[in-house]
Amino acid sequence: MQTSSSLARAVDGDRFWADIEAQAKIGALPPRGIRRLALDDQDNRARRWLMDQGKALGCSAHYDDMGNVFLRREGQDPSLPPLLIGSHLDSQPSAGAYDGTLGVVAGLAVVRALAEQQIVHKRPVEVVSWTNEEGARFAPGASGSSWFAGRRDAETILAARDDDGVTFREALTDCLALLEAQGAQFRDIPVVPHAFLELHIEQGPVLEAQGAPVCVVTGIQGVNWYEVEVNGQANHAGTTPEASRRDAFMGAHALVGALKQAVSALNDQVRFTIGKFALTPNSVNTIAQQARFTIDLRHPDPAVLDTLDAAFQRLAEQEWSNCTVRLEATSKVAPVAFDHHLVAVLDDAVKAFCPQAPRLVSGAFHDAIHLAHLCPTAMLFTPCRAGISHHPDEHIERVDAEVAVRVLAHAVERLLTTRKD
Amino acid sequence: MQTSSSLARAVDGDRFWADIEAQAKIGALPPRGIRRLALDDQDNRARRWLMDQGKALGCSAHYDDMGNVFLRREGQDPSLPPLLIGSHLDSQPSAGAYDGTLGVVAGLAVVRALAEQQIVHKRPVEVVSWTNEEGARFAPGASGSSWFAGRRDAETILAARDDDGVTFREALTDCLALLEAQGAQFRDIPVVPHAFLELHIEQGPVLEAQGAPVCVVTGIQGVNWYEVEVNGQANHAGTTPEASRRDAFMGAHALVGALKQAVSALNDQVRFTIGKFALTPNSVNTIAQQARFTIDLRHPDPAVLDTLDAAFQRLAEQEWSNCTVRLEATSKVAPVAFDHHLVAVLDDAVKAFCPQAPRLVSGAFHDAIHLAHLCPTAMLFTPCRAGISHHPDEHIERVDAEVAVRVLAHAVERLLTTRKD
Repeated sequence: MQTSSSLARAVDGDRFWADIEAQAKIGALPPRGIRRLALDDQDNRARRWLMDQGKALGCSAHYDDMGNVFLRREGQDPSLPPLLIGSHLDSQPSAGAYDGTLGVVAGLAVVRALAEQQIVHKRPVEVVSWTNEEGARFAPGASGSSWFAGRRDAETILAARDDDGVTFREALTDCLALLEAQGAQFRDIPVVPHAFLELHIEQGPVLEAQGAPVCVVTGIQGVNWYEVEVNGQANHAGTTPEASRRDAFMGAHALVGALKQAVSALNDQVRFTIGKFALTPNSVNTIAQQARFTIDLRHPDPAVLDTLDAAFQRLAEQEWSNCTVRLEATSKVAPVAFDHHLVAVLDDAVKAFCPQAPRLVSGAFHDAIHLAHLCPTAMLFTPCRAGISHHPDEHIERVDAEVAVRVLAHAVERLLTTRKD
Repeated sequence: MQTSSSLARAVDGDRFWADIEAQAKIGALPPRGIRRLALDDQDNRARRWLMDQGKALGCSAHYDDMGNVFLRREGQDPSLPPLLIGSHLDSQPSAGAYDGTLGVVAGLAVVRALAEQQIVHKRPVEVVSWTNEEGARFAPGASGSSWFAGRRDAETILAARDDDGVTFREALTDCLALLEAQGAQFRDIPVVPHAFLELHIEQGPVLEAQGAPVCVVTGIQGVNWYEVEVNGQANHAGTTPEASRRDAFMGAHALVGALKQAVSALNDQVRFTIGKFALTPNSVNTIAQQARFTIDLRHPDPAVLDTLDAAFQRLAEQEWSNCTVRLEATSKVAPVAFDHHLVAVLDDAVKAFCPQAPRLVSGAFHDAIHLAHLCPTAMLFTPCRAGISHHPDEHIERVDAEVAVRVLAHAVERLLTTRKD
């Protein structure tokens, strides 16, 4: 093995960026951005492109029951759990070219550097692309990684349908047949990786504002989703006196005020978003019968989420503007704190390139949230312009991304040389 | 002419109620209620039924450019402006059997009493059914009455399209052809009536709560409609810190709080309703880019409406949660105070049957709001159960409705005998 920084220096920046641009052509939208919905033709083309790159580097290609793809650079001891690096290649319907793709192509760049430098390592290294991280075609997302980590069962995932009624199972069957035809080897039983590393765009404004090209992510916020129903009585807007009203909109307005107050009473970095809101019957001159809205509540500390959950439930037991409330938690994903040792390794690598970089907790989900339950896991972020993602305007600077990939390579080299096998 | 109360006594209550039930069969919905959208087949059948009744009573049938139908009981002096009584036969998509229909059938009951008693009157009496009061198929409503009163031009009305793309003009052509085929006479130039009387269900809870079978309506509240846009910036619910947010939902929430405060600061009987509300992109984990909502604002006093209009415009000039606001008044209908003499005549008639009846200002629109600009106009209300209308559960008690029709007959007799010709 060479010195700690040699693999980072060996990363071919031009080739890395050319790979990013090659991936951006698969499912390209005019004038920019991509559409590569999970398991559609473009998503399958992206898998094929990845496997072709791996073969050229002497990697073997593997796939599993969920269509996750693994490029394996063999180690001296093939029985050792592999070091896993990657992210996902699927996208939102009208997306940028970096969300997910960056992490896969970065893993490829690191493996390319290992291959080109003919570095011999004891432990296998694998680049992974997880199936359906976005959940845009089949909800919920992170299908491949959650199944791989044993967090979600296959039957539930396979039963999901897209808007055209196509099941995940049907779409997956085509994908698996293509992977087999392209010479990938089927893996019956998922391996437990030695560790998982994921580089991703921040999807937020912090790194750009601080001028840092990369940072360590120490964990992922927990997220509670709620659906709230406020039930009143539809009535004529002109003829119904104030005192006789059970106005579901006004009930929702009062309740939201109380929810906001509960959140701000904590004086903490809670993220509280009401992104969906609908009235029934939704007519200009009819008092609303029902208001329905969602809450997206995030915090890195499970105790804060529990406190707010209890407060929300108590508020839902009251009447608001003579309306009753039904509040249901539709999803609770606990916060994840990444492995301390792995975070420390990434921290050292970041500091070698950018001593002032902050540490962030991810506000968004990533495949890493599931892998963290299976093996030591950590992430790196690189900035995206104005924090914009899930939009063709999503943009990263090549200079930032290159630094991030070199930090990743730096950390990989360290893990391959110093971690106990 | 007979004494004042004789026409009221002469109203055939059984026949009146049988007519209500006959109309309820036209466009009947199972298990109850009706669907009789303006100018559809059922609405045309309702017109035909009305003309058949009129012919049986010796009335002539007339129609005009908007498909308004008039049954005319001739007076001794056909050159005198007619006393007009009526309402509308069209309905909301899923409606009760009384809204509108009651007023037309009540007019028919009065004319039947005149005919059966062989009462001779100097002035003609006409029963009218106005086209498209509801505005459910072709918006806005009150097409027939607003055109008749010279308040809206024909071209605008004729250009309206229903959800299937059919124009008012196309639907009306079929209706007019049927009316002609059924022997109705076309009236080129609208007459200016001597007066217009409309009996209608209250569509509110007041009369039922006070146990009054009927009351005088002294006017109709003015109504301002607004469309409000709150413009923020869509962003990731998980990754965007509070300080970086321009959350259109939270902007709308804050603005609505201020609007409510402006309304309640007046400490008055303002009716303020937000019945439509929508977010873009309306996704659980995306901060709203835009909130759009409507305001329905009503009051009998134009000065109160003007004060609130100015307050609303001032609030819209501010930023709310870093979001900008666009507030547009999409419709302003000034309050109407009905003719004092006509109100007094109805008041006397009501007192003869129900001395404790209140006087109400209508919170809902009616055809009378337009007629009031053309000729002396006033209305009667009869209670509907729980104030429910625009719903198959709309219900009136026969005993209340019969009293209301007799009050109407009482007033008509008074107008035919004592009003100056």
